[in-house]
Amino acid sequence: MINIGIVGISGYSGVTALELLLKHPKVRVTYASANNTKGKVTDIWPQLAGKTNLICTKFNLKKAVSLCDLIFLAVPHTVSMALTPNLLKEGVLVIDLSGDYRLKDAQQYKKWYGKTHVDSKNLGEAVYGLPELYREDIKKAKLIANPGCYPTAALLALAPFVSIHGKSTQSIAIDAKSGISGAGRKASAALNFAEVNENFKPYKVLNHQHAPEIDLYLSKLSTKPIKIDFVPHLLPVNRGILETIYVRLDQKLNLDTLHKVYTRFYKTEPFVQILPPGQQPELKNVVRTNMCDIGLAISEDNRLLVITSAIDNLVKGAAGQAIQNMNIMKGFKETTGLN
Amino acid sequence: MINIGIVGISGYSGVTALELLLKHPKVRVTYASANNTKGKVTDIWPQLAGKTNLICTKFNLKKAVSLCDLIFLAVPHTVSMALTPNLLKEGVLVIDLSGDYRLKDAQQYKKWYGKTHVDSKNLGEAVYGLPELYREDIKKAKLIANPGCYPTAALLALAPFVSIHGKSTQSIAIDAKSGISGAGRKASAALNFAEVNENFKPYKVLNHQHAPEIDLYLSKLSTKPIKIDFVPHLLPVNRGILETIYVRLDQKLNLDTLHKVYTRFYKTEPFVQILPPGQQPELKNVVRTNMCDIGLAISEDNRLLVITSAIDNLVKGAAGQAIQNMNIMKGFKETTGLN
Amino acid sequence: MINIGIVGISGYSGVTALELLLKHPKVRVTYASANNTKGKVTDIWPQLAGKTNLICTKFNLKKAVSLCDLIFLAVPHTVSMALTPNLLKEGVLVIDLSGDYRLKDAQQYKKWYGKTHVDSKNLGEAVYGLPELYREDIKKAKLIANPGCYPTAALLALAPFVSIHGKSTQSIAIDAKSGISGAGRKASAALNFAEVNENFKPYKVLNHQHAPEIDLYLSKLSTKPIKIDFVPHLLPVNRGILETIYVRLDQKLNLDTLHKVYTRFYKTEPFVQILPPGQQPELKNVVRTNMCDIGLAISEDNRLLVITSAIDNLVKGAAGQAIQNMNIMKGFKETTGLN
Amino acid sequence: MINIGIVGISGYSGVTALELLLKHPKVRVTYASANNTKGKVTDIWPQLAGKTNLICTKFNLKKAVSLCDLIFLAVPHTVSMALTPNLLKEGVLVIDLSGDYRLKDAQQYKKWYGKTHVDSKNLGEAVYGLPELYREDIKKAKLIANPGCYPTAALLALAPFVSIHGKSTQSIAIDAKSGISGAGRKASAALNFAEVNENFKPYKVLNHQHAPEIDLYLSKLSTKPIKIDFVPHLLPVNRGILETIYVRLDQKLNLDTLHKVYTRFYKTEPFVQILPPGQQPELKNVVRTNMCDIGLAISEDNRLLVITSAIDNLVKGAAGQAIQNMNIMKGFKETTGLN
Repeated sequence: MINIGIVGISGYSGVTALELLLKHPKVRVTYASANNTKGKVTDIWPQLAGKTNLICTKFNLKKAVSLCDLIFLAVPHTVSMALTPNLLKEGVLVIDLSGDYRLKDAQQYKKWYGKTHVDSKNLGEAVYGLPELYREDIKKAKLIANPGCYPTAALLALAPFVSIHGKSTQSIAIDAKSGISGAGRKASAALNFAEVNENFKPYKVLNHQHAPEIDLYLSKLSTKPIKIDFVPHLLPVNRGILETIYVRLDQKLNLDTLHKVYTRFYKTEPFVQILPPGQQPELKNVVRTNMCDIGLAISEDNRLLVITSAIDNLVKGAAGQAIQNMNIMKGFKETTGLN
Repeated sequence: MINIGIVGISGYSGVTALELLLKHPKVRVTYASANNTKGKVTDIWPQLAGKTNLICTKFNLKKAVSLCDLIFLAVPHTVSMALTPNLLKEGVLVIDLSGDYRLKDAQQYKKWYGKTHVDSKNLGEAVYGLPELYREDIKKAKLIANPGCYPTAALLALAPFVSIHGKSTQSIAIDAKSGISGAGRKASAALNFAEVNENFKPYKVLNHQHAPEIDLYLSKLSTKPIKIDFVPHLLPVNRGILETIYVRLDQKLNLDTLHKVYTRFYKTEPFVQILPPGQQPELKNVVRTNMCDIGLAISEDNRLLVITSAIDNLVKGAAGQAIQNMNIMKGFKETTGLN
Repeated sequence: MINIGIVGISGYSGVTALELLLKHPKVRVTYASANNTKGKVTDIWPQLAGKTNLICTKFNLKKAVSLCDLIFLAVPHTVSMALTPNLLKEGVLVIDLSGDYRLKDAQQYKKWYGKTHVDSKNLGEAVYGLPELYREDIKKAKLIANPGCYPTAALLALAPFVSIHGKSTQSIAIDAKSGISGAGRKASAALNFAEVNENFKPYKVLNHQHAPEIDLYLSKLSTKPIKIDFVPHLLPVNRGILETIYVRLDQKLNLDTLHKVYTRFYKTEPFVQILPPGQQPELKNVVRTNMCDIGLAISEDNRLLVITSAIDNLVKGAAGQAIQNMNIMKGFKETTGLN
Repeated sequence: MINIGIVGISGYSGVTALELLLKHPKVRVTYASANNTKGKVTDIWPQLAGKTNLICTKFNLKKAVSLCDLIFLAVPHTVSMALTPNLLKEGVLVIDLSGDYRLKDAQQYKKWYGKTHVDSKNLGEAVYGLPELYREDIKKAKLIANPGCYPTAALLALAPFVSIHGKSTQSIAIDAKSGISGAGRKASAALNFAEVNENFKPYKVLNHQHAPEIDLYLSKLSTKPIKIDFVPHLLPVNRGILETIYVRLDQKLNLDTLHKVYTRFYKTEPFVQILPPGQQPELKNVVRTNMCDIGLAISEDNRLLVITSAIDNLVKGAAGQAIQNMNIMKGFKETTGLN
């Protein structure tokens, strides 16, 4: 039994982590904090009535350290890098769901997140928490940079391909669509029901901070650097990400061969499902699960690969993956609490 | 050709008025203002691109008066009563879409709107703009108190009944459901898509400021004062109100007879439709129209009347009715611009 | 470990039962059938990929009996009464989620369901599976008539009141709103997304087959027969029921007193939550749980009680309640698999 | 005043045509038919109550010919080519909203629509009704092949680019998202609210019948044949199409230059709006209008062009464009009835 704290309990990732952890047989949630909210967690999230007695307080380092073995930081970027060094110093394990430790270069961070990174020491040390690629490193990590929601779907979709064919790739365009919970839980007229409902739109076209994260970890898999083009869109649904990825090839590719590559690559993975040729993922099949469903198609001339990939942005794209990482770090069965 | 101003163009009622007025053959919209927004109206409401060159500015009395014959006040309550006296003094006609001039008693206003009324003189003079009941008064009015959205659906549903059977009514409960645009367009986490979508809830149970408005105008139709019980709910749709009204009777009532009463009452009304017995209104049939659809049912023991009533809260419940009032005031055909 | 069969796995209640039972530590789902669908259950419900190997076949009595200790009938009415006698004869326990065994009078059944009841013997024997009222009977039951979704929300909301004040009740009107999954999963243009989305409507006004079910079980709690008036509506959400109940009283009632009565009545109930005075239930707090949230309000003149009640129609209103009944029948802890 | 018939009034395109034509000052709708529905049009579409007395009957050639100068065929493909030759023979103008006359090659038709074309004579004669490209031909046409919804958004988005840079285009991928009304109004469990709501999915990946239509008309604009890759998706909204188009270039392209090209290309077009650089279209700005909004972006390396394009699939993508074509054919002002 280990003791877990959640910093940022009033947000969607924080509460999703709590909901999952309350059913996890090996942990106890002993601490919850938020910046602008106080009181019973069940007052913030009435759907948890009867399931927890946690009290949410403003973050207090001493209290957090004394009550927790491991802390989930479900906070906005820049907040994480202010808290993390002190937690690590006190021997608390940290899983950071923000973007603060994902890009390994402080200049890149500055460029995409608009702030100077204040914890460059741990920036280098943090392990990128995508278990399908970095399981061994995660086992030994003290600090996990939990992947972004868009990068999770993109990297799982592209890793098998890029590992083999990275060199012969001409271009990769990722057309991503996310449910509204990805925008967080803040007061904003643009997020109002009447603005989002019956609407659909692209945003941050070719200019989203998750693009360099995808580039970085794809490039590690390839003998040549990869640079993707990324266009996100806002879907009128609460949860879920679906990405449609267009990969142009230097050489012809065969669907059956590729399908075998993918199936083999993820053969032992509990949370990745390669669909049979001709089938495509849909949000409703992955929402509220930790699964990533992947579909494959190839054009008639065998020169365009279309990969489709779907996850729940709050589960495999955030809190579920964080728990998967925790399970690996603590030596629990990887699927514990996630099925 | 008359010149119209819209104060509060950045809200849903304001823009709905503008959309309708742009198609109205007898008017020109010459002035638009808002409190926190400036610039081209098409920047605020891109769906109007190519349809208007209006510039939105902060409200300025002199400018408003010089440019307009009639002004729609689509502003929050308390703002209207600050602007109205000056507009009337300068000879501008006013149609107020807020709640400021609907309750005729300043104490009632204080009780339900939480503020002292500062324009008691015009409070008494304002004509309640429900054309189906007050058409003759509207013709001569300088100031219209445009009815609330909930009261419009309730009063049209109950007027024929209460006019005849008010005395034998035991009780009236109104179960009202409104689309989210009724809550206005403000930054609020509670109005976020992810909070409203896939949700449904009652609010202000037995405690909504539209209840006394309904009581007041029903009582005028009856020989005994009427007091309704009112429970509003929030629907996950953009537009529309549907009310289900439970009327308990002292005496038995026959559906066919009542249906005839209703049909006759509204025989010449262009915007009220009494459905055949057995049929019920639905939102999609009235949304984006100025219609009120009404259905009637009676219990097996003939002692409970169930009236269902549907309108578009932004059209017949706000801007459409305001234009209907304007048409009457200015002697235009009442349906002009509303079909 | 007991063996469970689900008949009607291709419907929403059937799959909800399966999802819950797959996480239940004391049971194994060994049999699944459907009328018009065959093959892997994960082909019918891809969101269960990796979670079950069940194969769906056409119903076969011999096979069902040999594989199951207890069977959930998640089938349309009239199908249940054809299967139940044979299952009971073979010693299999039956929990029937259809309406076939809820009304105790074959003539009533005929009137509301339009068919002659063919199993009047078991009609009398079946226990109405609302644990909060009939727990002791459920313990000994061989056949459970699992309550309707609307009656579950209504009976839990009204039971404490009617038990004490049934005699002084003048009238009860239930304004009920249900998510679309209540209509089942059938091909019908009226259920199409484009017809339901952005719409809201009443249906079967004062004429729904759940009304006599509510009357029957309320009357058992009261010294005088109760007859409610019931108007259901269709909400554009996937799941959830919210009922707003208007109770007219012969005598004055005090909110605090009544709140105490309710709190005491459900003190030991794990799945009913009485909200503090002033709070109201909302769908999102109960969806995907087995909870019934109940809110109370009383009018200024203390003569109208408004009770609001919310459940998930597929969980507490169907499959979750069925599992709660199973837990009671088999002596498991009542909340097993439901938290 | 000309007389118009609508064949297929029970579908979404048919009723959208009717709604628009009822407000059109130069036409009268004199005939309406449908295959499986009869009776008052206001019984099929209650939102039209009070606006039309049309009676829907089964299609009858004689009657149609005697009552109409021009007929809109809003019917499934294969039905159009059965009706069109007879209508043309009788001198009735035809605007066909189906896919029957869009592909000019009967073999292509067979391949994509699965049926042998039975009217190859008119297949060649039909004018493709995209006014922005074929206005002069439309003026003289007897038979209009009204463009598909996806092709309308794609062709308007790509025409200026392909006209100039067709030769230097490496590849074009179109990621298209459509509201559910694009699937028509048929009974199908897959179209049920509970299946579509909170879901999103690709379908017919690289295999949709609108792809060859886009290829055909793009190729006419270019000195080299164009072949696009097309992936459509189903959005949980009633109306609207948004396409995100990825164009890979042989040479570098500058955003400002391209923006000028687009602005000039559509300078006099009333229904195409090129957004300023940095702005993107969204569905809510085009829904219920005949507009196509287009946004432009170029990657940092100036080798990828991203074009975004939004229309209402039922208006500019079907009935609105049909009326625009009618206006041109009959010499009316092109925007009549469409603003």
